[in-house]
Amino acid sequence: MTTQTISTVNGVNVEQLVGTVNAIKENPDLARFKFRASNEWLSGGHSRTTIDGFYGAGDEDSSRTEPFILEGDEPPVLLGQNNGPNAVEAVLHGLASCLAVGFVYNAAAQGIKVDDLEFELEGDIDLHGFLGLSGDVRPGFRKINLTYRLKSDAPRETVEE
Amino acid sequence: MTTQTISTVNGVNVEQLVGTVNAIKENPDLARFKFRASNEWLSGGHSRTTIDGFYGAGDEDSSRTEPFILEGDEPPVLLGQNNGPNAVEAVLHGLASCLAVGFVYNAAAQGIKVDDLEFELEGDIDLHGFLGLSGDVRPGFRKINLTYRLKSDAPRETVEE
Repeated sequence: MTTQTISTVNGVNVEQLVGTVNAIKENPDLARFKFRASNEWLSGGHSRTTIDGFYGAGDEDSSRTEPFILEGDEPPVLLGQNNGPNAVEAVLHGLASCLAVGFVYNAAAQGIKVDDLEFELEGDIDLHGFLGLSGDVRPGFRKINLTYRLKSDAPRETVEE
Repeated sequence: MTTQTISTVNGVNVEQLVGTVNAIKENPDLARFKFRASNEWLSGGHSRTTIDGFYGAGDEDSSRTEPFILEGDEPPVLLGQNNGPNAVEAVLHGLASCLAVGFVYNAAAQGIKVDDLEFELEGDIDLHGFLGLSGDVRPGFRKINLTYRLKSDAPRETVEE
């Protein structure tokens, strides 16, 4: 009789994580992914993105039974109708979820248990760039402030590293 | 008696668009915006972003009656449970909705009617960067392919410009 222990830290299957890293070391092509998004413009600032399959780990992924739908729009002050967050807010979400995954997976790999983790992001933007009123102002964020709160039993210096 | 005509092109109120541009020319500080996102990690690759108020046009915006909630997660092959698109897919959505708004607002400002507009994005990523297996590979997209389809009565050269 074999007893199998699934070692999960922070909701991350650490054996699978180590297995994935080792598989990629043996076959670097497994690390090649292609992610996709289709966007349909609806009216004014409102558009809708559909996200479904992707290529990765050597094959087309078929794990998603239905696509993810994301709405994008501007607020009224930017001529939209608030049907969704706008593009730069979506980018803040992307950055935040990237940080969350990166932090938690790294912690799991090192056996650090994370109890709570939150990120607050605020990005400064100057519309002179987007509106084409100045060639000197970049259209995107000039600065993003990030605050995070973490609850963990691990020593502060281990976490900061 | 005064007759007021609201000039809307592509669902964009062109008078408001011109008014916004002129207001910013007179008072550049009106172009300063601060967008925000709060992200709470839930488990494994799953986190949840809340997007609500922002600062812009000289004041805190209060047009949103409830926050936007965006889920982020990884697919099983990346140790998640598909509770939402992942971070790089969210970035593709941000890019697509940015392109849609930018294209449609610019067209409206020039009086070009857009009937249909779609974007397909595919981004290539090599996980060696994210996993820290190679310092030479950038963690983000190496390349993003963009295809768009546009239906408009405007001449092709006007659109391409």
